[in-house]
Amino acid sequence: MKLYEFGLSGNCHKVRLLLSLLELSYEKHIVNGSAAEHKSADYLQLNPLGQVPVLVDDSIAIRDSQAILVYLALKKPHSGFYPSDPVLQAKVQSWLSVASNEITRGPAMLRMHHKFGKTIDIEAAHQVSSQILQFLEQQLAKTPWLVGTAMTIADISIYPYVALAHEGFIDLKLYPAIQRWLTDIETLPGYVTMPGIKFQNQQVNL
Amino acid sequence: MKLYEFGLSGNCHKVRLLLSLLELSYEKHIVNGSAAEHKSADYLQLNPLGQVPVLVDDSIAIRDSQAILVYLALKKPHSGFYPSDPVLQAKVQSWLSVASNEITRGPAMLRMHHKFGKTIDIEAAHQVSSQILQFLEQQLAKTPWLVGTAMTIADISIYPYVALAHEGFIDLKLYPAIQRWLTDIETLPGYVTMPGIKFQNQQVNL
Repeated sequence: MKLYEFGLSGNCHKVRLLLSLLELSYEKHIVNGSAAEHKSADYLQLNPLGQVPVLVDDSIAIRDSQAILVYLALKKPHSGFYPSDPVLQAKVQSWLSVASNEITRGPAMLRMHHKFGKTIDIEAAHQVSSQILQFLEQQLAKTPWLVGTAMTIADISIYPYVALAHEGFIDLKLYPAIQRWLTDIETLPGYVTMPGIKFQNQQVNL
Repeated sequence: MKLYEFGLSGNCHKVRLLLSLLELSYEKHIVNGSAAEHKSADYLQLNPLGQVPVLVDDSIAIRDSQAILVYLALKKPHSGFYPSDPVLQAKVQSWLSVASNEITRGPAMLRMHHKFGKTIDIEAAHQVSSQILQFLEQQLAKTPWLVGTAMTIADISIYPYVALAHEGFIDLKLYPAIQRWLTDIETLPGYVTMPGIKFQNQQVNL
């Protein structure tokens, strides 16, 4: 398998994290963003949307980070990362949708603005961030993981842009259950980090 | 099963459409938006995000339209609407993500503005609409359906806000393959319509 990625993309980080947790080996291809490689004819063959990540396996290209999580979890169905029970699978899907929708429009957009200078509607991004972090806090105050009794791709899909929220000037101090959950993920065997991740519990993790 | 819905929501329409195609019976509950029923304490128990649709089955509430499509398709696994093959399932997921992300930020947002008066960043919504409609056109010019050789929940998740695009002042004349695909869906046995859907081929459909 070959992963086309940016080092600083949270969407790529979630894929690297699941690859590591599943102990799957792969080849990395760091896409050269400053040379606009992701907009080149060759890359647009892999993903016409010109986005990272793309996973190529047996000459089949899978685009979209949530889709890649589904694909990898289905390679190891007994890992439990993507439960086959209809209720649990639907609940996982509802969080994959949050990752694609509210997390993208909220924390990821604010980071894009403050870290990379993109012009955005800051007020709208703050509003959706607050709503979705409160929802996440409410769930994680009740259950250790987002769905069922163990970690699933729901947690992995949501994790990176929440762990990077401070780069979008979002303060997680208001959200103790989210902080607990971040630490639970960051202390898992097989956890991999990326530049910018700020651990909740520096003395343990650094 | 009981579906909590708004009559004019495209996200609710996709659920009604799959329920009909799968010949599943259900009870309707039209949420009273003008009385803010979707923000009432009782409704927030069903969905803390205060959004429609919600499907309740055996006292379990499933939120998020894409998650409900997954849940319903898993009830009838041999219907083919949600293939179990990992590559096909990942490809379906990549379109469910488009429904949650670009379709929401593009065509659905423009409709929210022009039909319901919501203040939005019109230029950003037009930009994402153009990009995603071109992507959709490119796929549908090559294949009859978005994934594989038959209709899946990928098609159903994308359909409503594309069929309603004219309400957001998007002209689909530039996209002949999308128009062909809309007609293919709208002429299926079991197809159900909703107010606002403008058929491509009025003389056949009306």
